[in-house]
Amino acid sequence: MTLRQELQWMIGLIRRQRWAALATQSADGPEASWAAYTPEPDCSGFLLHLSTLAAHTRNLLADPRAGLAISEPEREREDPQKLARVMIQGKVAVISKSSADYQEAVRRYQARLPDSTPRFEFGDFLLLRLTPIRIRLVGGFARAHTLDSAALRAAAQSQPEDPA
Amino acid sequence: MTLRQELQWMIGLIRRQRWAALATQSADGPEASWAAYTPEPDCSGFLLHLSTLAAHTRNLLADPRAGLAISEPEREREDPQKLARVMIQGKVAVISKSSADYQEAVRRYQARLPDSTPRFEFGDFLLLRLTPIRIRLVGGFARAHTLDSAALRAAAQSQPEDPA
Repeated sequence: MTLRQELQWMIGLIRRQRWAALATQSADGPEASWAAYTPEPDCSGFLLHLSTLAAHTRNLLADPRAGLAISEPEREREDPQKLARVMIQGKVAVISKSSADYQEAVRRYQARLPDSTPRFEFGDFLLLRLTPIRIRLVGGFARAHTLDSAALRAAAQSQPEDPA
Repeated sequence: MTLRQELQWMIGLIRRQRWAALATQSADGPEASWAAYTPEPDCSGFLLHLSTLAAHTRNLLADPRAGLAISEPEREREDPQKLARVMIQGKVAVISKSSADYQEAVRRYQARLPDSTPRFEFGDFLLLRLTPIRIRLVGGFARAHTLDSAALRAAAQSQPEDPA
């Protein structure tokens, strides 16, 4: 695969999966957890809808630095180390309900994760945007690339989303 | 499900999956990545075989605190937030080749992840053990339990491994 093909494949993986591991900073060190996510069309942001009752949300409100890791699904009998995966380091900010882009972000999130809709009525949930800073793509064993957010955006923009 | 059944289910998940998200500490904050793992029979340790060329390994050698997150596989159309998952916070230590338990740990790791065997000949790989300190089990939306390592061990011991 050429680098261009690998990037296209990565954008497809990001758009196909909906469940990612999240690394957040606690007082006791880094914590790994799970969260549903929705990428914006150009991958300039990843929307998360999290409860303030959850440890990762409290961690993010205290320290906005976060990692998001997305992987191909594990396949039985196959060497997992060869699975393609994307690791995104970035910073998270709350999208306030009064901000200009809140409604559009909600619409986009709910279109991809329709079961989340009732949770937008819950008082303890916040909509957050993770903005990528550094992206690491591992296409398989010993094939890796590091990108900045502009390169991720260019790859996403060169590949239009399928109509939902 | 009773708590006992949830714990049994958690042990089954840990033994069934082989690919987990790893949270490590970098100078720029928490990083999320992926690693294959092998649990010890009583879940008192989780074996990782990592290359020192990888960022997460360098992070762990500088700061041994780590998070390991294991999830049910994502299912199409289903609310991912309802997937059962386990989050393990702990500390990692290198198992030196001269230590008494190195050969047994290698045997166990390779039995579960046979494709890894050639990588044990590579000079840049280390075998590490993550020792759990705090375990968080989320059985689905709004059903969560926090355990210490003794409770995890007791759950694992009450449930013998299937003969391989």
